[in-house]
Amino acid sequence: MAGSTTGKLFTVTTWGESHGPALGVVIDGCPAGLPLGAADIQAYLNRRRPGWTAIATPRKEADEAEILSGIFNGLTTGAPITVMVRNTSERSSDYSEIASCYRPGHADYTYDAKYGIRDYRGGGRSSGRETLGRVAAGAVAAKILKELGVKVTAYTQSIGPVSIDPSRYQEENIYTAATAMPDPEADAMALAFLEECMRNSDSAGGVVACRITGVPAGIGEPVFHKLDAALAGALMSVGTVKAVEIGDGTAVSAATGSQNNDSFYRENGTVRKRTNHAGGILGGISDGSDIFLRAHIKPTPSISARQQTVNKNGEEVAISIKGRHDPVIVPRAVVVIEAMAAITLLDAMMVNMGSKLTVLKSVYGK
Amino acid sequence: MAGSTTGKLFTVTTWGESHGPALGVVIDGCPAGLPLGAADIQAYLNRRRPGWTAIATPRKEADEAEILSGIFNGLTTGAPITVMVRNTSERSSDYSEIASCYRPGHADYTYDAKYGIRDYRGGGRSSGRETLGRVAAGAVAAKILKELGVKVTAYTQSIGPVSIDPSRYQEENIYTAATAMPDPEADAMALAFLEECMRNSDSAGGVVACRITGVPAGIGEPVFHKLDAALAGALMSVGTVKAVEIGDGTAVSAATGSQNNDSFYRENGTVRKRTNHAGGILGGISDGSDIFLRAHIKPTPSISARQQTVNKNGEEVAISIKGRHDPVIVPRAVVVIEAMAAITLLDAMMVNMGSKLTVLKSVYGK
Amino acid sequence: MAGSTTGKLFTVTTWGESHGPALGVVIDGCPAGLPLGAADIQAYLNRRRPGWTAIATPRKEADEAEILSGIFNGLTTGAPITVMVRNTSERSSDYSEIASCYRPGHADYTYDAKYGIRDYRGGGRSSGRETLGRVAAGAVAAKILKELGVKVTAYTQSIGPVSIDPSRYQEENIYTAATAMPDPEADAMALAFLEECMRNSDSAGGVVACRITGVPAGIGEPVFHKLDAALAGALMSVGTVKAVEIGDGTAVSAATGSQNNDSFYRENGTVRKRTNHAGGILGGISDGSDIFLRAHIKPTPSISARQQTVNKNGEEVAISIKGRHDPVIVPRAVVVIEAMAAITLLDAMMVNMGSKLTVLKSVYGK
Amino acid sequence: MAGSTTGKLFTVTTWGESHGPALGVVIDGCPAGLPLGAADIQAYLNRRRPGWTAIATPRKEADEAEILSGIFNGLTTGAPITVMVRNTSERSSDYSEIASCYRPGHADYTYDAKYGIRDYRGGGRSSGRETLGRVAAGAVAAKILKELGVKVTAYTQSIGPVSIDPSRYQEENIYTAATAMPDPEADAMALAFLEECMRNSDSAGGVVACRITGVPAGIGEPVFHKLDAALAGALMSVGTVKAVEIGDGTAVSAATGSQNNDSFYRENGTVRKRTNHAGGILGGISDGSDIFLRAHIKPTPSISARQQTVNKNGEEVAISIKGRHDPVIVPRAVVVIEAMAAITLLDAMMVNMGSKLTVLKSVYGK
Repeated sequence: MAGSTTGKLFTVTTWGESHGPALGVVIDGCPAGLPLGAADIQAYLNRRRPGWTAIATPRKEADEAEILSGIFNGLTTGAPITVMVRNTSERSSDYSEIASCYRPGHADYTYDAKYGIRDYRGGGRSSGRETLGRVAAGAVAAKILKELGVKVTAYTQSIGPVSIDPSRYQEENIYTAATAMPDPEADAMALAFLEECMRNSDSAGGVVACRITGVPAGIGEPVFHKLDAALAGALMSVGTVKAVEIGDGTAVSAATGSQNNDSFYRENGTVRKRTNHAGGILGGISDGSDIFLRAHIKPTPSISARQQTVNKNGEEVAISIKGRHDPVIVPRAVVVIEAMAAITLLDAMMVNMGSKLTVLKSVYGK
Repeated sequence: MAGSTTGKLFTVTTWGESHGPALGVVIDGCPAGLPLGAADIQAYLNRRRPGWTAIATPRKEADEAEILSGIFNGLTTGAPITVMVRNTSERSSDYSEIASCYRPGHADYTYDAKYGIRDYRGGGRSSGRETLGRVAAGAVAAKILKELGVKVTAYTQSIGPVSIDPSRYQEENIYTAATAMPDPEADAMALAFLEECMRNSDSAGGVVACRITGVPAGIGEPVFHKLDAALAGALMSVGTVKAVEIGDGTAVSAATGSQNNDSFYRENGTVRKRTNHAGGILGGISDGSDIFLRAHIKPTPSISARQQTVNKNGEEVAISIKGRHDPVIVPRAVVVIEAMAAITLLDAMMVNMGSKLTVLKSVYGK
Repeated sequence: MAGSTTGKLFTVTTWGESHGPALGVVIDGCPAGLPLGAADIQAYLNRRRPGWTAIATPRKEADEAEILSGIFNGLTTGAPITVMVRNTSERSSDYSEIASCYRPGHADYTYDAKYGIRDYRGGGRSSGRETLGRVAAGAVAAKILKELGVKVTAYTQSIGPVSIDPSRYQEENIYTAATAMPDPEADAMALAFLEECMRNSDSAGGVVACRITGVPAGIGEPVFHKLDAALAGALMSVGTVKAVEIGDGTAVSAATGSQNNDSFYRENGTVRKRTNHAGGILGGISDGSDIFLRAHIKPTPSISARQQTVNKNGEEVAISIKGRHDPVIVPRAVVVIEAMAAITLLDAMMVNMGSKLTVLKSVYGK
Repeated sequence: MAGSTTGKLFTVTTWGESHGPALGVVIDGCPAGLPLGAADIQAYLNRRRPGWTAIATPRKEADEAEILSGIFNGLTTGAPITVMVRNTSERSSDYSEIASCYRPGHADYTYDAKYGIRDYRGGGRSSGRETLGRVAAGAVAAKILKELGVKVTAYTQSIGPVSIDPSRYQEENIYTAATAMPDPEADAMALAFLEECMRNSDSAGGVVACRITGVPAGIGEPVFHKLDAALAGALMSVGTVKAVEIGDGTAVSAATGSQNNDSFYRENGTVRKRTNHAGGILGGISDGSDIFLRAHIKPTPSISARQQTVNKNGEEVAISIKGRHDPVIVPRAVVVIEAMAAITLLDAMMVNMGSKLTVLKSVYGK
């Protein structure tokens, strides 16, 4: 699994399994001098915690963040920041049935195929709990971005057939609604839809949108590390995401050039665009407009409905996933998407500092 | 531009500008012992050449590949393979107008913002000509993949409102139709639509689909270098792509778990899936099914219709892009998408060799 | 500090400060299926523990390894392996004096210059305790290498003016002698020399040698990741090392070609060399002979003798380092050098698997 | 050969074989806005050219640099800079004998072992001609470093038994003396020694020293990418180097702490050191003093004296290397060492810009 690290200068390495002793993250390359404490990270972790809403799994997971390194006298020192969350409710017995059986929609079979061995307890490394480390790193990245005038805001745009109405957008609702929808009416409708899903022993998917404001023009490295390429890879690395859109996304394929091009104009000495079909990125580089992303999230694969599958011996069996699982993962994925966007953007901003000789000269005092 | 290299073991570095002396690619980490010649690469380059169809720009670009290193006696040696294409028709005078003016939908403004300087001739580094290097590398990757039983096939799925009908799929049509559509009827309809676009001084977008067959289960590195994450980043790094879908893609957000999960069964001793909503990837690792991707491509931003913009001095001006430009980039993007998929998959297959101790022991003879 | 990770496929990320809550390492890319437990790692950590000999600092440091992830049912799973060592004897008060003052030979000044902030407790991140993580990773690498028939053995070759006599080499002595010298007579002489150093409030340096046997020919990636380049970088990254030699090392500069070239011959169907001036590496690639390295280690900078320096306010002050410090770091550095060599070689062996198309075909069953 | 690229932000990829069509380099991540032309690069290439002195091989190699990308209107654009040197005197017939036979001291055997195939013409990729690309990249790095007040100066310190006398150091002699020694008397003595070597059909080694002035304190990334670790790896990656020393180097192992520690003092508001045993680097980070490195270079393995070896069929044979080879490679290696030091330092300086939050805020205007 040579893939647990991402980032070029702001590097994030997550580690840990669902039911191992602990999960966590090492954040290396964090600039020194940032005020940081466990509370900064806990606030983000709480947003992905199961059980914070009625619809999420009622499993108790404290998910308490402990910072093991990289902070001194309340400030980052430039040393790697390690955050650990102990797994407290290890109930491996619950997972005895799936030890030998491949759950549809899960990574059980592919892990066995790749490694010849699998930590089957709660999905092991492929568990959604791995995202704890991402979210902790995202909290750090977001705090630095804030110092640079950048804000990343993700929210639930749709669940199943229910979409928000942008005209009813209320940001604070993201943090209070069970669905993380910024539209109270859509929130209520989505909850009703989810109750129906649960009655049917089924689950739902949805869309997480993410808006980034305050990004200076010029961020992103052509040609393979374009900002949109980096963001797409980052968002798709979240387990449940099956599609990523930038700006108008899939709609561009049916648009014409005259519809899709954003006209430039000038306002207060700054180049601006009258529209933002491009989603804030042109040629892989930020253009100073808001960056707008969407991630399409599949329905939770763990459903109590009976499903056909095979076990490790190749025998066909029918299973029904026991335990209490989220009927929808979207609300908990919101902060994960936000974290991935923040991590990716910060790294790109740090890398970008080498783009102009004049910047090097200003940093090194010539 | 610290981003011109991609890949961990099979690394690809493209270089060159639209109107500089030459463009090319360095392919490092290519396994030794592969029969390879300029003709292998030329065959791929020809598929992205402008002028091969009526709808593409009639500019003459020979795009002749010269291999400068890495081959000896017709075989790869393990040394970096450098492929160069000389720019023959440098007509910088054509581009004098855009030197100071930011074309809507192009990267003119963002390059200036990032670097403080811009090679404005034909888009410079942000030109579609940069993909020559990608395609040359893709030709090499595809030839290796073929030796491993893997085949990558991209094609045009839609242009503007015209989509192919899968029941009429004929693979050979991809390489002969002007639209690179595998469906002759859709091809004809799309051409009619494009003619209308041109009459309107406008342009069209579309969707490129990509199917990969023969991929063994087990490829992809959790958690940040999942196979779908790597593929999404790779496809999004192609300049015109604004959305990437894996398997059912955006449709998963409206599906339920019981609809979206793929049941496993066993056939001839192999674990298989009855459906393939997942697009061949579970938990970021290939599952042995076909991998299926889609890239949404925006309409060509260069249109002759009059557009509002600003110039470097901040003055608002109106421009109309002169010269003969593709009314649609999709058919030429097909081989670029295919190349990026091949490069990314091969790299992932090489990295995967370290996943099991038993494989190391077999390679090192213990 | 974007530099806490090393390795391309077998990646090692160390974290933690001398007096923070804990130190540790994340080992990613470890092949699945290796039997591994805390005892494997503890055995290596014990070799670098202070207090295991009379000459080393009598500080009590339990340095107990806890594995937090990556192991299931006693086997590696391919997931990142995290090892943590809690810091038990945090006595920050001891370090109050050096908070504002730059100790000669230490990194106090350079950390302040780089980060503008410094965890001054026990050297913080620049402490020798950081090597705990390296040694833990080295234990894992060594166990895999053993499965591949490769053995890495480091030992003290000299301390101050006392060098071992190769004719008296006894491997077991490395693990029992206070100096980690494989020559009992040299061990006794070196101990006498060190006692004199301590009487003089001074410290000593020395040389660690490292021999690697069983390496197959063909390991190492030209041109920048040559095996000797990778090993030299890895050894020099150990804080106290100021010179690295491969094979005859510095002696080559005074030799002639006829003296320095190693003649090839054939034995039992294998190409061998009659001599090994090259130290087992030709053109950056292993040649099947033993790899032989030496690292020159500076005298411990912490001495109780009075030294001139400046404090953060720029005032010149005299200090004498209090506390009990090792009069020589060489014996404890032995296992660190061994670890770095093992980590680096294993990574190179994993990367090398992609060198030949025939190997790819054998792994993927074609 | 997944190792032809080095650097994190200022990345250098060399390509090409001794007798292939061309050799070159892609330099990516070069800051935009640097005045650069072929003449800048040619000046460096000329310093490594064979034939510029009586002692070097009289082969004619024009080694004319052509810049293929990355420059517009005389300035770097931030795009990758590709430099190509065509191989003009391809005389493959000269190398027919070594096609099947492994030359002692060369990489013939190890390339065959690794790749199963070898471009035997002139050493192929393991040829010293590969360093053309490094030197071209070094020329670019040096020009940027000059803008930042940093100067890298390498020179021959010794050849065989002849060392320079520092009291006779004259910098300009480096660029005019056949030996690249800054001491005219040593130059004469070394030439006499080399004539003797040639009469004996033998060759000589030597030491290249490198001094870097003007480096600000704070450069280098603990713990694995320390500045000394990066420099050691970079210098050892030059084919002929068998040992690297920083500061006092090997001498530290016999010194005591009181001798080896450098005392700090203050001068004109700056922290300085009274001595520089450390060679300008403490804890892997530059301390503001001169950085001082030495590379030990082995005698040229190509000698006309008769040597024993084996051929590919495993038969023992005697060979005597024909053609005109350098009796010493040291003078030509000087500019290669200088280039590697410049490349490595510049990359470290670019990476370091992310170390402090205050620097990020100053760059992004907050």
